[in-house]
This record gives sequence, C-alpha cells and structure tokens, in this order.
Amino acid sequence: MIEPTRDPEQLAVHTLRMLAADAVEQARSGHPGMPMGMADGAFVLFQRFLRHDPTRPDWPGRDRFVLSAGHGSALLYALLHLYGYGVSLDDLKRFRQWGSCTPGHPERGCAPGVEMTTGPLGQGFATGVGLALASSHIHERLGGGAFSPADWRVWAIVSDGDLMEGVASEAASLAGHLRLGKLVYLYDDNRISIEGSTELSFGEDVAGRFEAYGWHVQKVDGHDRQALAAACEAARDEIERPSLICARTHIAYGSPGKQDSADSHGAPLGADELRETKRALGWPEEPAFFVPDEARALVERRRAELASEREAWEAELARWKAACPDGAALWEQLSRADLPAGLLDELIEAAAGESAATRALSGKVLQRAAKLVPGLLGGSADLAPSNKTAIKDGGSVAASSFGGRNIHFGVREHAMGAMLNGMALAGLVPYGGTFLVFADYLRPAIRLAALMELGAIYVLTHDSIFVGEDGPTHQPIEQLASLRCIPGLAVYRPADALETAAGWTLALRRRRGPTALVLSRQKLPALERPAGFRPDHALQGAYVLVPEREGKRAVVVASGSELAPAAAAARELGVRAVSMPSVECFFELGASERDAIVPAGWKVAVVEASRDPGWARVAGRDGLVIGMQGFGASAPGDELGERFGLDAGSIQRSLADWLAG
Amino acid sequence: MIEPTRDPEQLAVHTLRMLAADAVEQARSGHPGMPMGMADGAFVLFQRFLRHDPTRPDWPGRDRFVLSAGHGSALLYALLHLYGYGVSLDDLKRFRQWGSCTPGHPERGCAPGVEMTTGPLGQGFATGVGLALASSHIHERLGGGAFSPADWRVWAIVSDGDLMEGVASEAASLAGHLRLGKLVYLYDDNRISIEGSTELSFGEDVAGRFEAYGWHVQKVDGHDRQALAAACEAARDEIERPSLICARTHIAYGSPGKQDSADSHGAPLGADELRETKRALGWPEEPAFFVPDEARALVERRRAELASEREAWEAELARWKAACPDGAALWEQLSRADLPAGLLDELIEAAAGESAATRALSGKVLQRAAKLVPGLLGGSADLAPSNKTAIKDGGSVAASSFGGRNIHFGVREHAMGAMLNGMALAGLVPYGGTFLVFADYLRPAIRLAALMELGAIYVLTHDSIFVGEDGPTHQPIEQLASLRCIPGLAVYRPADALETAAGWTLALRRRRGPTALVLSRQKLPALERPAGFRPDHALQGAYVLVPEREGKRAVVVASGSELAPAAAAARELGVRAVSMPSVECFFELGASERDAIVPAGWKVAVVEASRDPGWARVAGRDGLVIGMQGFGASAPGDELGERFGLDAGSIQRSLADWLAG
Repeated sequence: MIEPTRDPEQLAVHTLRMLAADAVEQARSGHPGMPMGMADGAFVLFQRFLRHDPTRPDWPGRDRFVLSAGHGSALLYALLHLYGYGVSLDDLKRFRQWGSCTPGHPERGCAPGVEMTTGPLGQGFATGVGLALASSHIHERLGGGAFSPADWRVWAIVSDGDLMEGVASEAASLAGHLRLGKLVYLYDDNRISIEGSTELSFGEDVAGRFEAYGWHVQKVDGHDRQALAAACEAARDEIERPSLICARTHIAYGSPGKQDSADSHGAPLGADELRETKRALGWPEEPAFFVPDEARALVERRRAELASEREAWEAELARWKAACPDGAALWEQLSRADLPAGLLDELIEAAAGESAATRALSGKVLQRAAKLVPGLLGGSADLAPSNKTAIKDGGSVAASSFGGRNIHFGVREHAMGAMLNGMALAGLVPYGGTFLVFADYLRPAIRLAALMELGAIYVLTHDSIFVGEDGPTHQPIEQLASLRCIPGLAVYRPADALETAAGWTLALRRRRGPTALVLSRQKLPALERPAGFRPDHALQGAYVLVPEREGKRAVVVASGSELAPAAAAARELGVRAVSMPSVECFFELGASERDAIVPAGWKVAVVEASRDPGWARVAGRDGLVIGMQGFGASAPGDELGERFGLDAGSIQRSLADWLAG
Repeated sequence: MIEPTRDPEQLAVHTLRMLAADAVEQARSGHPGMPMGMADGAFVLFQRFLRHDPTRPDWPGRDRFVLSAGHGSALLYALLHLYGYGVSLDDLKRFRQWGSCTPGHPERGCAPGVEMTTGPLGQGFATGVGLALASSHIHERLGGGAFSPADWRVWAIVSDGDLMEGVASEAASLAGHLRLGKLVYLYDDNRISIEGSTELSFGEDVAGRFEAYGWHVQKVDGHDRQALAAACEAARDEIERPSLICARTHIAYGSPGKQDSADSHGAPLGADELRETKRALGWPEEPAFFVPDEARALVERRRAELASEREAWEAELARWKAACPDGAALWEQLSRADLPAGLLDELIEAAAGESAATRALSGKVLQRAAKLVPGLLGGSADLAPSNKTAIKDGGSVAASSFGGRNIHFGVREHAMGAMLNGMALAGLVPYGGTFLVFADYLRPAIRLAALMELGAIYVLTHDSIFVGEDGPTHQPIEQLASLRCIPGLAVYRPADALETAAGWTLALRRRRGPTALVLSRQKLPALERPAGFRPDHALQGAYVLVPEREGKRAVVVASGSELAPAAAAARELGVRAVSMPSVECFFELGASERDAIVPAGWKVAVVEASRDPGWARVAGRDGLVIGMQGFGASAPGDELGERFGLDAGSIQRSLADWLAG
C-alpha cells in the first residue's frame, strides 16, 4: 500500500471513485469504469463551476448538470452524497435496489439533484441543448439584462457513446448554429467502448467535427484538475459558442488490472480487484463506503459558499423583481404555468365551425393558445408550413437571439424530441411538429418524456394514407398503434375543430406526461353533435356522437378523418356512432363510464385508417376493424380511400354487411 | 424567348429539368425544385461515371445509384426514361398515380433502375454506406483481386435534409472510420429547406465536418458540368476515403420566379411559372414532356458504350471464374442464397438441450448458421458481448479491411439498421444487435426494410423487465407491441433452445421481409414438449405445449421467458398452454389452424412481460392479459418479477383466480 494522500481535493476525488466502485460491488451490478475515470472532471465541475446549492436542489437559478453518460450513475450519486443532496451512505448501499433513490441509471424524481433521466445514449446530450435554449429563451423574454432568474448554464458529462449517437449530432449542429454559449460539455474521452477500443469503430476527429458545428473545443488531460479547471473557465467565459472539453481519461482509473479495459465498463471490479485498487490508490480497504474527514470538510466549506451565493442570488432576484415588474410578472406566470379558466372554450372559439384539415385547425388553435399560455413555444423539424406550427408574430429563435417563440429545428426530428424534453424540464410548454410517419425518428425521446413525466406536445400531421401522392414512405400505418403503446403518452386524433381544440386543451393541461396530437392533411367536415353533448366530453377520450335507434345494439367507433363517414353510415344504419379521439383517455375512464359509451354485449366495429391491433380491446376478438393491413401507395388520397376500402361508400358497405352478418 | 441551345448535353440536362417539372405539374403534386437544381450533377453521373447498363438493370457488377433526396423522384424517373430503363413518357405522365411505376418517392420494385426506396431523409445516405461495405466485403471474400463481380461503387445524391439527420451522421462517421473509398456522394447544396433558407437552422461547416469524419471533400459549382466531372473523377480515384462533393446549386434552376425559393420545393411551379421557365431556358412551351432528338442521340451513343462495357465485364467474369474457382463457387453461393436442407435440425443441434438465456443460445445458433450461410454477417451497436452477436473466428471488418464477418457498428443503432438494408440489397444476409429497448432508435430503418421487403435480421436481447438493475430506461415494455405493428416484420420471441433455433431458421428463410429475434438476458429452462410435437411446429408461430385435461376449455398463451411459468401453471390447473413465439406467424395461419391452437369459445389468458394491447386479438375483450402496464424499475430481476406479478408464483395465482372467476 502506498502512502495515503492527505490532499483534501485528491481525497475527495478518490472518495467519488471508491464510493462508486463500492456501490457497484455491493449491488453486484453496474458500471464502475466511468465513475473512476471521470471523478476528477466531475469534482472540478461540482466544486468550482457548477452554480448549485445542495440545500435547495430546485433553486430555479441553479446551473443544470446532466450526466448524459447515465451508466455512470454511481458517480452522480457519490457526488450527491458528498455534496449533501440528501443521498445517504445507506442509499449508496442500496444502489440498484427496489425503491431506492439510487437506481441503475439516473431517474428524474428519485434523488434530489438528478435533473433528468439518462441512460439511452445521446439523449442527455440533446436534452441539455434544450435546457440551454430554454435558459437563453426565458432570459431574453425576461428582458435579457445583467440579471434574470433564468440565466443559468448547462454542464454535462458525455461519453463516446453519446457522441456516436445521431441524436447528439443533430443537437450539436443546432446548438452550434444557434450559438448556445451556455452549454459546457465535458467529454469523457477514455477511448474504450463496450466492444473494446474505440479504434474498432470511432476514429473520427471529434474536435474537428465539433469545430465544424461551430463549437469552442479544448483538449485536456482528464486527470489534471488544474487543466480541467482552466478549460472549464475558458468554456464558461465563451458565451457565443457552446463548448466541448475533450478530457482524455483512463476508464477505471486506479485499478491495476482493469484500468483502460472494456471489462471495467459494465461489471463490478470484483472483490480482489477492488482491494487491489484501493491499495494502489492508498485507500483504506475497510470500511467500504469510506469518506475521509478531510474530503467532508473541503466540501463543507464549499457548501457554505454555495449557500451564500444562492442567498445573494435571492437578494438580487428581489431587486430585479422590483426593478422589472413586467419581467417579474412573466416569470411568475412561467413558473406557475397556470392555465386560464375557460381554456377549452377559448380554443374552441378560435377554430369554431370551420371545415378544414385538422392540421389547419390546429394552427388556428395554436395562435390562441400562444396568447393564453406564455410558456408555449415550439416549431417543426423543417415542416412548419405543412405542420402549421408557426406562431404568427412570435418571432424566431436564431443565432444569439433566443426570445422568439418559433424554433427552426431543421430536419432533426430526434434532436427536436430531446430538446422538447429539455425545455419542459425548464418549465416551458414546448411543442414540436413533424409528419406522423416520422414520429418513428423521435421515438426514443418520446419514451423519455413519458418516463420523466414531461408535458411535451407533438404535433403530428399527415396522419394516414390520405396523405396521398407522397406514397408509402410518407403514409403512417402503424404509427398510431405504436404511439398508443408507450406508457404515459396520450395520443389524441381529433375529427374536427371542436375536437382539435379539445386535443390542445388536453395537451396543455397535461403537465405530467406528453401528448401526441395526430392531425389530418386533408380537409374534414365539421360534425353535428347530439343534444346534451358538452365540449368537455371530448376530453374524456370518447363520447357518443350519433345515438342509435331504439333496440339497435351495435356501435361503430372511429377517430379522426374516419369519424364523419363512419357517423354517416351509422345514421343510415341506425346504429350508435362513438367518437374516440383518445383510446388512452377512454381506458382511463371507469368501467361503467366506458360501458355507457361502448356497452358490453353490443356488436362493435371500429373504423380508422391505421393498423392498430390494440383496437381488439374495443372491438373484441370477433369485432370488425376497418383499417389498414399493409403499407399504403402513391396516388391521390381520394383514390387511395377507394382502393383501401376507407372512403365513405366502402365504409358504409362494410358496416352494412357487418350489421347484416 | 431566348435562342434555344443546340448543345446536346445542355439539351439533355434541360430535358431532365423539364420532364420533372412537367411530371409534377401533371400530377399537381410533387417536388420540382430539386430535380431542376440537380439535373446537371445527375446527368454528369449517369452520362460519365455511373457504371450501368439500362438494358440490364440487375447486372450485379453495376454501380449503385441512390437518390437519398427521394423527394426528387421526378429527376430519377426522368433519368430512367432518358437512359432507356423502361420508364416511358406515359409513365412520367402518370407520376404519383395509382399503379404507376413512378410513385411519389422512389420505391424499390416499381421501376427498373430504382435501387432502393427513399424519401425518409438520411436513410438513403446510410443505406448507401451499407451497400458500399457490402461491395468491399464481398470483393475481399472473393479474393480481392483486380477483378471481382462485386467491385462496384455507390453514387448518391444527398440533400441538406439528409445531412441534418442523425442517421446520416452516424453512417458518415463509420464510413470515414472504415475508409469506404467506394462511396461518392454528391451533396445538393442549394441552401434551401422547406421552412426557408438553411440559414434558419443549418449553419455548420459541412465540409469541415466531413473532413473530420475522414472523408475526402470537394466543393464545386453544381451547374458547372466540367467542374462536376473533375470532382467525380477525383472522387472515383480516391479509393481510401469516401467522398463528398458539395455542389452549390440553385433550387428550381431556370425558374424566373421560383429559383432559390422554398416555394419550389414541394409544390408544382404552376402553369404560368412553368411557361416562364421554359421560355427562360429556351425550351418549347409545347408539347409538355418534350425530349429533343439531340438529347436522345447523345444518350443513345452512351448507351451503346455502356452495353459494351457490360459485355466486356461479362467476358472478364468468365475469365475470373475460370481462374478463381473458389471465388466463383462462393459467388455462386452468395448469389443464389440457398439454404441447406435440414437447416432447422442443424440449428437445433447447435443449441440443443441447454438451459440458458436465449441470447446465449442465439449466440450458439449463430455460430452454426455462419458456417451454413456464407452470406451471413453482422454485428452489434457496441453491445456484442451482451447481444452474443460475434461470429467466432469470423474476423472483424476494419478500416480498409473488409473481409471479416463481424461489424463493429459503434453506438449507432440507426445507421446499423440502415446499413443492414444496404447489405441486404446487395444480397447478403445481414444481422444487427442491440437491446430490445433500443429498437426504437432504428425503427425508421426497420420500417424501410419491411417496405422494401428486405431480409434484415435484428437480434434484440434484454427483452423485458428481467433486465433487472439497469432500470426502466433499459427495460423494454412497449417495444414488442410496437414492432408487431410494423407490416411485414416478423417478430419472434423464443422460450428455449429449440425455439431459438426455430427463430433463426425463420429469419434466415425470410429473404422477402425482416425478422426481429427477441431474446432474454436471463437464463430460461429447457421445455418439455408433448408427444407428437415436431420442431417445425415452432415455425408456424404457435403450438400447443401443454395439452389440457379433458373438458377444460381454457388456454394460456405465453411467449419467451413467461412460457415456462405459464406452462407450469397450466399443468397444475389442467388447462392448455400454448407457446406463441410469433403473433404475426400465428395470424398468417388459416382460421381453422388458429382455432386448433386457440379454440373459439374457450377462455383465453395471455402471459407476457410486455405491454401489448394487440393481445386482445387473442384474448378477446374480456380475456386476461398478465403483463406490464407502466414502466419498470431498477432492482434485481427476480424481485421485479415478484413486484410486477410476473414471477412463477404470481402467474400461477393470477391464472388460478382467473380460472375460478
């Protein structure tokens, strides 16, 4: 055993290393290599640069720290423990156990100080771009002066895996384009991936690539804390460009047998190697989860400084509020995220009575919503004119100019999805548009929104074969079904102006989960509704649109563009027609409420221009589902309707046969 | 009207422009801007560089041309017409109409000369990388001499939208890393995207970025055909690096009112503007779809040369076959892609009788399959040790060394998916591995495989909450369901060694559609099967594993890791147990065959550790589905089973209650 260091900083860094290694060992599962390799960089960030106060983890003025390399969660938990965020040694000992606040990958809501859920690579990187954009946006909306409560930075640790993922490339390009100077990403350049050396697959010039994106790039020794600090300082001072600090590190730093080896990535060191590592680092072999007093004292001093900084900030906030009452009022609104009373009525009024494509109606509703909800902002992955996602007179977010409410994401659906998550984390109400068929491109980000319970809104237009001539690559078939499978995502496919307003109302109200609005390219007729219908019925996911003739125990369920022809056929046939814009909302109703809409024992048919095996939940094993089986084709939409049996005449005939059968 | 040019080449280029503009005008729908802007570059490629013979569109030695910017399909169809690929003027007049060979975006199988389906941006770019890798791989396997029948190049036209997409970034990085010199991509740098100038969102230094990836990059005036030709020549001669030629173009070149305007991207010019454009280019206003004789004659001469070149190649092929009988035999095998008789038995033998994780069994089956199927190659998105995807002694594909059968895709799931498509287009039998939860990352490529009817194989391991400690970001819940929604994709979730062998057999046989193998992380027991069971029953998607006691009209259906506990419970309760590794294959059976397995009128329960609303097709509206509703959690897998009611005891209790209820 070597002579132990008594340098408090070195002790603190080794503490992070060994807490992480001990936690993984105890769990018999996890990733020790990354925490041991990045402990120096992470400590420099937390100790010297990150603006935070562990006693106030939700301080709105804090910098955001994102561990994009989420498999290194043990490093984050070690930091949160050392800095006093309320993660105890017992919590570290319960790493990766049921109900602990220290799950295998960082999860939002589990431990204070965890800003977001990470693990799927690239997501943290791209979400951080959204967080940084949110800060710059709100700051500018609040006046853009020397102080605002939203003027914070985003610091992240990213891995080679993050940088290989397309979503990170998309986000990096946009961050560089927009000159998001508040981003500082520390790249854990350890040259090791799961399959072995990065020489197997990752030989690109990362620095050159990021410079080409417009980033400020530095290279440092990732174990030289002075150099790391100098680089962080330069990065912080560079306010016109996002920063990447390439920190050359050694994975599993300090482990005699596993440093620089892929073996240390995703498995415990093992008892013997852990002991050897502690010896090599001059660390006591016992007890596990050891924290030297010097490390505690060092961090304690910093905690006191951080608390003072936060208190100074609060004082400055009070002065700012007094000096900028308009800004203060807006900040208050954004923070509370209250919705006006009568939102549904307002939105209905905005689009009322028109026959139009639901995407066009959505565009109208959006204008009113933008007036009512100051935190609402968004854009499209280069399809704004088609998605109808532009806020008129909202201004555009542009390089070094962030106050606009329209974001041009470029043809970058996946980064858009992740950036929406970042903006939602910052308390904004973000939306993003693309064609429904391309929802596939951002699916991993949608899943994370659902997992984090974030109120992102997806405006997904061109929702069926009725897209027409663009053909099968642009015609969604399975997308409705596959979105409906994601736990916690609400999918809403409106049929006319009223339902479009209801869909937006639902989306704006849902601040604890994402919503997908699924909208038609083609014009749809305004529907007649029965006596006794109240607009809020459309919020419950399903309602009776056409009452049946007495004694007719059959019901036709439809959504979106298929509702009008299905309802017409139902009227003709004397059966009930039910509008079901949201299957998820319908299934959240109680059994008796559901039964009042789709009664048990009745014949059920479903009409929807999609392929959703889940409709059997409504129609049953033997019910009729009029929809799509395979891919679409390129032809005018009306002709496709006829060819695929989804025009009004075919629907009517199919339903008549079914009723007679 | 200006004096018409009589330069045959200029006439041919204007012919492409105007045929495309006329086709879009006639269809009243489409994208005229790109074809008009890229006509020069496309003509230079087809006339001087692309090795092709329009009379033999399936000539294996041809270069592959990929229109990654698939919205410019009218340009491709105009080229195919002009070069005599069997696309007639009538076909151009039926652009985007039902049943025509000229759909809105290029579709594989519609017109000869269309190599792949494009439209979803980035896919063509990344698929081209797979095509180029396939060429280099096969060429090296065939001996790597001065001649081989697989020694062709990939030429593509890519747009700014392609370059913004993450999937293209991933593929570009890997192409540079591997030094895929057979790629030449012509970038249509027209500075216009749908929302307007690329200055809105795309300010990066594209050339610098691609140089950082290791590409050879040139910049030219995209309307200067001499410069284009010089750049193509330099690119062709650069055999150690992929090439990007940034061609500065004007969208809708020649249109007085719409050149350089986003308005020309996705809508017809309009009759007036089309007339003005023809005038400005010195083109006759009538008739539409005009092709000058000089252009026809110019291309006709080139066609004759191309045919001679192809004939020379055939002669060289014959000489090569004689000189390299081993290579010739392998080429024959690869071209025929025959499978050995008794494949299923062979694969069963390879994994027989073992209790193991199905991912481990898959790894064993793979070794045997690799011996039996010479075209089989693949890898993982940096998870090979977990996915068990390595072919032992297969060698690795590496920079400038392509003969290995193991591909290290890096953490690039989406590019992997697209590259599998490219390799499948080249006749190989490619597979790619990742965790099931990350199937979301490559979903757009899976969809295209299904649409193109390509036999890509996805090895998706870690298939449920039984992943355990890694937690909800790594535990698939909705992925099984969402994959099952994709038309034409077969999803197979085996329960033991025999079914794993059957899944691979199915996948290897399916050369007209992709297959997803869904595999467990955790060990599963070998199953006992009833008398009369034949292994090929496992290929039909479902079979009776446990016969019911007489008179018991109830059936429990399960897949994968839930089959053993469900079968045990069924034995105990005296009800039938059905293994259903593939729901799609089951529903391809006739109604009576299905009824013999899951009889109508019986009580049905389903057990699967997933969230698949489509199970209602099997269980009915009132059937029991024991599965997951929400996301998982981080804890050891066994504990998660208990917590979520999916351990053997809980399953048994739930089924007993259901049967009693």
